Amino acid sequence: MSHAPVITLTTDYGDTAPYAAVLKGVILGINPAARVHDLTHHIRPQDVAHGSYYLGVAAPYFPPGTIHVAVVDPGVGGARHPIYAEAGGQRLVGPDNGLFTHVFRHIGGPTCVRRLAESRFWKHPVSATFHGRDVFAPVAAHLSLGVDPAELGPELPAPVLLPTDSAVTFGGVWEGVVQTADDFGNLVTNIPADKLKTLPVAVAVGGAPARPIPWVRTYGEAPPGELVCLFSSDGFFEVAVVNGSAARQLGAGPGAAVRVEPA
Amino acid sequence: MSHAPVITLTTDYGDTAPYAAVLKGVILGINPAARVHDLTHHIRPQDVAHGSYYLGVAAPYFPPGTIHVAVVDPGVGGARHPIYAEAGGQRLVGPDNGLFTHVFRHIGGPTCVRRLAESRFWKHPVSATFHGRDVFAPVAAHLSLGVDPAELGPELPAPVLLPTDSAVTFGGVWEGVVQTADDFGNLVTNIPADKLKTLPVAVAVGGAPARPIPWVRTYGEAPPGELVCLFSSDGFFEVAVVNGSAARQLGAGPGAAVRVEPA
Amino acid sequence: MSHAPVITLTTDYGDTAPYAAVLKGVILGINPAARVHDLTHHIRPQDVAHGSYYLGVAAPYFPPGTIHVAVVDPGVGGARHPIYAEAGGQRLVGPDNGLFTHVFRHIGGPTCVRRLAESRFWKHPVSATFHGRDVFAPVAAHLSLGVDPAELGPELPAPVLLPTDSAVTFGGVWEGVVQTADDFGNLVTNIPADKLKTLPVAVAVGGAPARPIPWVRTYGEAPPGELVCLFSSDGFFEVAVVNGSAARQLGAGPGAAVRVEPA
Repeated sequence: MSHAPVITLTTDYGDTAPYAAVLKGVILGINPAARVHDLTHHIRPQDVAHGSYYLGVAAPYFPPGTIHVAVVDPGVGGARHPIYAEAGGQRLVGPDNGLFTHVFRHIGGPTCVRRLAESRFWKHPVSATFHGRDVFAPVAAHLSLGVDPAELGPELPAPVLLPTDSAVTFGGVWEGVVQTADDFGNLVTNIPADKLKTLPVAVAVGGAPARPIPWVRTYGEAPPGELVCLFSSDGFFEVAVVNGSAARQLGAGPGAAVRVEPA
Repeated sequence: MSHAPVITLTTDYGDTAPYAAVLKGVILGINPAARVHDLTHHIRPQDVAHGSYYLGVAAPYFPPGTIHVAVVDPGVGGARHPIYAEAGGQRLVGPDNGLFTHVFRHIGGPTCVRRLAESRFWKHPVSATFHGRDVFAPVAAHLSLGVDPAELGPELPAPVLLPTDSAVTFGGVWEGVVQTADDFGNLVTNIPADKLKTLPVAVAVGGAPARPIPWVRTYGEAPPGELVCLFSSDGFFEVAVVNGSAARQLGAGPGAAVRVEPA
Repeated sequence: MSHAPVITLTTDYGDTAPYAAVLKGVILGINPAARVHDLTHHIRPQDVAHGSYYLGVAAPYFPPGTIHVAVVDPGVGGARHPIYAEAGGQRLVGPDNGLFTHVFRHIGGPTCVRRLAESRFWKHPVSATFHGRDVFAPVAAHLSLGVDPAELGPELPAPVLLPTDSAVTFGGVWEGVVQTADDFGNLVTNIPADKLKTLPVAVAVGGAPARPIPWVRTYGEAPPGELVCLFSSDGFFEVAVVNGSAARQLGAGPGAAVRVEPA
């Protein structure tokens, strides 16, 4: 391969504090030829489920061998392990707190999980509160230089996984939850769209009474301001407001209960 | 050329949803050597005029051959075409909804417009709502690998253009609109500054009565908090508050009417 | 060295205006092989002290020879000089208004300061309000192509420095200020943590009465919502709320007085 593997960064560091910049500096300090890309530093603070969802959608599109550094780590410095994992050709570096759950769900695996234990690949002294800088970024940089993952530490039997929020169905009714609200305010649920017939449906979000909502194939098929439902770009049942925000109009966000029934 | 062309990304995807990361993954998945740069993912949601203004200012500075992927696309999946266009050496990929209007205004062209029709350069299955992932990013990646634009699809006679907001003048008075409010709250109008004599002026913004506003050459020439007018860095008439926000102080934003008259 | 030096960008431009994208375009227009990385464009508007703190933490981690372009520049176009400086192997380009103070504090120097005077390395015409585009970005691009810093302009005896906010101690009491509030709401002070014994302490923030706050080694050692104090990842005394925001809970931000005394 004539080019170095890509390293991606996904954190909840925000953009007014220098933490994300520090990760880049550490990586480039170890491997000046590294090709580092921000994915986002706007995972909601400490929200491991948000980080997992985000990575689960994005990571599978990257070329095999990409190294994803992910840090949403409320338990930093505590008992949770720092880990390396592989899944579907993607390489993952971060805390073992469920952050990679959706990656495994989307592309299978993990095929290899290791506890980061070999401190010769870390930055010293290791702080108690900033393993992104002292453990995860240095390990990713060393991986990009060709270090064999087997050198990083011993194998673990399995990573920590977040509880599964699977949608359930009975008698033509589906019950699930809002998986994510994007920046447009579109509510993407965990209800698989290909299991739903696109017959008239009534939808209840967040405990409100069920109301009929028209199906569209794409946002432009209904007038601005109209509440619609459609197949999300990932194949899930989605509720949206054309040129508006369903999250705001319905007062609902991630975790809100969703019930879809024949209208 | 010893290096791959640069690919830039300009969208309204925000940074809490994984859509922008997906574009990067798709591009790098097709061309692992691609050099991808974010411009912004904070075009106001669905605001094609904002996206057009942003790109019109930024794109002309990039080296010839740069591929700009722009996605502000409220009509995704509808009748609007996906297009490729060239202007002043820049290469543009996105929806044909007026998003490139200001690029053409600033650097001329387009010299070539093609409808993206050859689905062998797309990602399949193509969704109805995420052409950034399924059409625009893959096409940009293939272009960066050297695909001839003529292979992408048939020529179009002309792209869709946004209506022109030209400032008008009569009897020493200029009337125009606020083109953009930047993150400082500076209000940049569409009134060409080199047509204005820097004599005392009175300025009316957003329907408020005209008031005399002093000219400055640069922000530091007046005390903090003072309302001033100056030549913007792009050569337009600008209203600003020193170390403050004219947008907030005047309650005005993009589209607000501006009238400049001799004081 | 087989790869070009990294160029980093740190500004207060935000992400809805095209200014940051313009910097990238200008740099790549001069050196199409440049490796440009955003650090942040979210320094608080005009807040030179924030920019200085941010760069002081981040810049030292980058590989020697990295070129840091920093633009927080309320005095643009006025009497302040544009400068080039070197410190600990890092190369700095920006306004001479104190923006590099914390870099020098953290890694020493500067070992070389030059006034940017040779306009052949600039973009013309030079505006009065956008030296990022017309002076700093072009100079950085030329440096990345191998231009000798001695060609940029004459040496200056010393850069402008911000006043030093040093913490003071007397009789077992430390008095200092909040240096920064990060996006989690953690308050990092300028009180050196290694000078503090981790004995019971009472802490007064922003003029409120002193209250005992328990020490932790890392956030996970106390229950969510609890106010704690700890050593920041940079070695300073920090006040935090576990899984919450100390900035919000205490109503305090950068510059707030902090007093730490034996409990």
